[in-house]
Amino acid sequence: MQIEGRNPIKEALQSENTTITKLCVQKGAHDLQVIIDDARKNGIRIEFLDKVKLDKMSETKHHQGLIAFAENFKYSSVDEILSNKHNKDLFLLLLDNIEDPHNLGSIIRVAECLGVDGIIIPNKRAASVNSTVIKVSAGATSYVKVAMVNNINDVIRELKENFVTVCCADMGGETIYNAHLTGDIAVVIGNEGDGVKHLTKSLCDKTIAIPQFGKVNSLNASVACGIICSEIVRQRSL
Amino acid sequence: MQIEGRNPIKEALQSENTTITKLCVQKGAHDLQVIIDDARKNGIRIEFLDKVKLDKMSETKHHQGLIAFAENFKYSSVDEILSNKHNKDLFLLLLDNIEDPHNLGSIIRVAECLGVDGIIIPNKRAASVNSTVIKVSAGATSYVKVAMVNNINDVIRELKENFVTVCCADMGGETIYNAHLTGDIAVVIGNEGDGVKHLTKSLCDKTIAIPQFGKVNSLNASVACGIICSEIVRQRSL
Repeated sequence: MQIEGRNPIKEALQSENTTITKLCVQKGAHDLQVIIDDARKNGIRIEFLDKVKLDKMSETKHHQGLIAFAENFKYSSVDEILSNKHNKDLFLLLLDNIEDPHNLGSIIRVAECLGVDGIIIPNKRAASVNSTVIKVSAGATSYVKVAMVNNINDVIRELKENFVTVCCADMGGETIYNAHLTGDIAVVIGNEGDGVKHLTKSLCDKTIAIPQFGKVNSLNASVACGIICSEIVRQRSL
Repeated sequence: MQIEGRNPIKEALQSENTTITKLCVQKGAHDLQVIIDDARKNGIRIEFLDKVKLDKMSETKHHQGLIAFAENFKYSSVDEILSNKHNKDLFLLLLDNIEDPHNLGSIIRVAECLGVDGIIIPNKRAASVNSTVIKVSAGATSYVKVAMVNNINDVIRELKENFVTVCCADMGGETIYNAHLTGDIAVVIGNEGDGVKHLTKSLCDKTIAIPQFGKVNSLNASVACGIICSEIVRQRSL
């Protein structure tokens, strides 16, 4: 797996979810000494290359003078995420087939900023954590636990057995401002086009919605996710 | 100006902010008949082209079989936006040098979904409404009034004279959940890297902040904007 750009690589060097095996640095690029020193300290092989070569290697086209090669992203298990809980209420996101890596990356960034304990994604027909996701997450993939599962519905059943309230985010639900969103909670965010699948929705404890007034369109998945997470943070702070 | 993709062009055909002069359609593409009929009804010249040719013309690389040529985006004046008010409280966004067209497009989409009356942007060192912005906004540029001004600070002074509360979104402010965000309101969103400029911030009535818990990073500008707008919607609904 390739990781590109200064912040994502800086974060990856600190992270338990990523192991960098080689770092390619653009010849003559400035302000990279701290990252180079950090990589050296970690015993990572460093190669200095011309800009033309890095441009050619780059998958995101925004490498900022740095491309790292890393072992694949280390997913967590659902149990590891659940044990993250400690003394505070659990706060999870379940992504029901988010397909766009940009949306997955943005959602992971939102999760990191707003205190989500972990994200659960399906292993089929959905974006997984690749170099684009890492870049878009602005390094947040290094800190947020992500579990990949066969079946989101089984996880919902397990969470409900453990008294976690599972909320489906979908049009037509109770508005997020009126719904009670405190206690152990998991929010299901649906696919960009189709929303949450029928069976998945029916398994959830309730459906919650963001009031919207537009003529055109609904909110982007990561913005909607940010608004719901923020409302959970607000209700917890009362 | 080029507009690309099905939704943006469908919306542009309905919009007062855009006048399409020519529509290029991919030969053999499906499901475009409604848009073609709509364009014909509006007396727009239609040209059928091979996919290869459209791919070459495309600026966004996601044309979905349709590229339209339009007169430049029609900006509104600040007065037009203020007269949008009617019987409800005013709700404005002032963007203090948002530079990334993707962020500007996302913010316009958020604004359309959450009932913002208009957006004010500076005419220097900031993204303006181009084809990328229109595409990312998913058609919302057709419905949201955007004014471009010489000086955001002058607009803030004018708004304050008109008893509009101007809130600066910045770290270290009062949390949005505790701040009073009702009545006529304008929110200033700062540059992606530098935030709101010092003088601009000092002109605002107050500074508001989203509580964040991340180690890495702050929220993306459009997600932050969505969270603040949603909190305004919530407080208005009480």
